[in-house]
Amino acid sequence: MARAFVAMRQRALRIQSTLSARSRSVVTVSSSLDLDSDLALQEARTWDQGLESQFATTPLSQIFKDKRVVIFGTPGAFTGVCTKGHVPSYTKNVEQLKSKGVDSVICVAVNDPYTINAWAEKMNAKGKIQFFADFDGGFHKSLGLECDLSKALLGLRSQRWSAFVDDGVVKVLKVEKVPSELKVSDGETMIKAIH
Amino acid sequence: MARAFVAMRQRALRIQSTLSARSRSVVTVSSSLDLDSDLALQEARTWDQGLESQFATTPLSQIFKDKRVVIFGTPGAFTGVCTKGHVPSYTKNVEQLKSKGVDSVICVAVNDPYTINAWAEKMNAKGKIQFFADFDGGFHKSLGLECDLSKALLGLRSQRWSAFVDDGVVKVLKVEKVPSELKVSDGETMIKAIH
Repeated sequence: MARAFVAMRQRALRIQSTLSARSRSVVTVSSSLDLDSDLALQEARTWDQGLESQFATTPLSQIFKDKRVVIFGTPGAFTGVCTKGHVPSYTKNVEQLKSKGVDSVICVAVNDPYTINAWAEKMNAKGKIQFFADFDGGFHKSLGLECDLSKALLGLRSQRWSAFVDDGVVKVLKVEKVPSELKVSDGETMIKAIH
Repeated sequence: MARAFVAMRQRALRIQSTLSARSRSVVTVSSSLDLDSDLALQEARTWDQGLESQFATTPLSQIFKDKRVVIFGTPGAFTGVCTKGHVPSYTKNVEQLKSKGVDSVICVAVNDPYTINAWAEKMNAKGKIQFFADFDGGFHKSLGLECDLSKALLGLRSQRWSAFVDDGVVKVLKVEKVPSELKVSDGETMIKAIH
């Protein structure tokens, strides 16, 4: 009787785990972003600008609809590889990306928009590319690109990734094997990947 | 029968809500911080210093045991009142606080330690007071001082508060009615409150 109960429980757990894996949406090349959803990002700005805007957010449709967008996700403002490698690899290649018909180059991170703004200012990157916050990780969770970086004292953040998105459809997607690496999601690789 | 079921369910909900309120620890004057717990804060530092320290954390006992500590909690690095009012009210009064036998003055926020470090540097406040991160909000949750500031695009943060803690025992506690106010948790009020 006890053995039958254990077997039943193990089966229930297997089913539960399968369902959980199935329900986790993971973005791939040719995925369409859900531009009709409630998902939004938050434009990087100072606290005073945030207050003035009544903490407005930007719906995904406004960012992606009818636009050719290069977007890259970094694990954290004021962290190492993001600041020294990932962001500069895009800021110095904006013109080359635009010459390939890219309308906007966006950096996104699971931080609040005021922190991202301060970080962009410190890197002297404001105005070169756009910066958006995903303060609650909702956008990254919808892509299956969230990442628990508590070991690095960061909490829930994102993988390190990049994508070229044409009118909401993912045409190029690069996700680093580990967030500390910068091998495939950099600006130079993106230039070569866009045709 | 249906009415009896509704009454039973309402009673169950009342019990549940009472239990939930009871289990939520809310710090008060004369509370003792649990210095033997696993709770820790994370000293503000650059990413490279974090990496070098192997992401070390600081146990509460190291911060509070046998020490007279003034600590204040701010809702967020790079936000308005925190930057313009709360932190300066302590940095300019450090000497007066120390003349009252205070060993350390600490600013804490639910941010990661690299963001707090960048914020402290920008305010030119490093070295004047200490800055600690509570990256996952664990410390504030243990005090019942966490606060959902999603409406301001911040997520889970903290109330605005201050305390004078003598060898782990809370002697003075000031919590603002709303986090946007700075009426009772400022440095000047703290000077008057310490005897």
